[in-house]
Amino acid sequence: MTEFPRTPRTSIRRLPKRGSYDRDTVYSILDEGVLCHVGFAERDQPFVIPMAYARRGDEILLHGSIGSRLLRAVAAGTEIAIAVTHLDGIVVARSAFHSSMNYRSVIVFGRGREIEEPEERKQALDALVEHLIPGRNAEVRPMTDEEMRVTRVVSVPIGEAVAKIRTGPPIDDEADYQLPIWAGVLPVSMTAGAPLADPRLGDSGVAVPASVRTMSTSFRAGGVGD
Amino acid sequence: MTEFPRTPRTSIRRLPKRGSYDRDTVYSILDEGVLCHVGFAERDQPFVIPMAYARRGDEILLHGSIGSRLLRAVAAGTEIAIAVTHLDGIVVARSAFHSSMNYRSVIVFGRGREIEEPEERKQALDALVEHLIPGRNAEVRPMTDEEMRVTRVVSVPIGEAVAKIRTGPPIDDEADYQLPIWAGVLPVSMTAGAPLADPRLGDSGVAVPASVRTMSTSFRAGGVGD
Repeated sequence: MTEFPRTPRTSIRRLPKRGSYDRDTVYSILDEGVLCHVGFAERDQPFVIPMAYARRGDEILLHGSIGSRLLRAVAAGTEIAIAVTHLDGIVVARSAFHSSMNYRSVIVFGRGREIEEPEERKQALDALVEHLIPGRNAEVRPMTDEEMRVTRVVSVPIGEAVAKIRTGPPIDDEADYQLPIWAGVLPVSMTAGAPLADPRLGDSGVAVPASVRTMSTSFRAGGVGD
Repeated sequence: MTEFPRTPRTSIRRLPKRGSYDRDTVYSILDEGVLCHVGFAERDQPFVIPMAYARRGDEILLHGSIGSRLLRAVAAGTEIAIAVTHLDGIVVARSAFHSSMNYRSVIVFGRGREIEEPEERKQALDALVEHLIPGRNAEVRPMTDEEMRVTRVVSVPIGEAVAKIRTGPPIDDEADYQLPIWAGVLPVSMTAGAPLADPRLGDSGVAVPASVRTMSTSFRAGGVGD
């Protein structure tokens, strides 16, 4: 299946031409991010919580403390919405009305399940580290049993999802193109800087590892959709 | 009042030392961002929607089409949660367990109201443009009556809010500091690039205006909390 089904909650009613149900499009947006916003409701009270995540195949993985209220709710089968948004540019139009932002966003709707089986949980945690810092699993001290015990991991199937994308220059009113007003796009993107060593490394001489070196030069989210 | 009250929904139960109810802290995080994630629920179904916003005094302003489901819900007094998150760094610990992210986030809880009075609405829209592109209001073609008619503007009081912040190097298990494993922070930040002129400017010779020039060199979100 290369397209997600359109459902009442994923149907884009405003500017439907910006919507995409294409699986590859949704996955490429998810793969570029490291931070999602998870929404859930307790009775009529909505909550939105920023979290790390990873996509693995057709699922989103989340993890955290066994004390986390959100993860407990997910494990109990609460409906959640997961949003990932990349800001790509500020769209500077000839009018305030047509000024906008270029972005690529995904919303996933669903119910998760807790990953309880230890080996499955270990693999999911590895996938979370791999998504955040590719290659890091091979460099760190292994997880202890106690760390595993206090960590909850949940999997949310990517069954209902929609991407929303705006790219390109402003779309101004036809008459406004004659005005002597500058218009265009200010591209924005998220990039990594030079690694900062933990002061407690002291003069140990431990070098910046391959995982961090690679990420320092290649990490980039946004800025392509100008 | 310099501190927001702690309420059941803003109380941080996990890692409370990362929480702050300080008004200046909350406002500085809000002022640095251009994109928020708004959560609301229809019955038990949560939604999370990325949106532009502006802080003006003790309120958050949102705007969009009169056809927007979210803004209609806000205008009707639905409870919402607004999250703004700046990712500042990837925290590379000596173990996967202590690996983390540096970030500054704010969650605001409340109910909004529609701004209906035309002059008040005009001022709110000016504040939204000013937040997105400081100085741009003086450069654009003025709003038309028809544009005003199809735009909904809502104000959400910042009455219940909490910031959550992580900064600094990894906090590893004491024994792990002896391991020959690199640790530190990979700072990340969102920055603007060079302005891209709308191709339809052609050879009109209209120069990049002060607002866009300033933003191109000064826009920066994140990266300070390393």
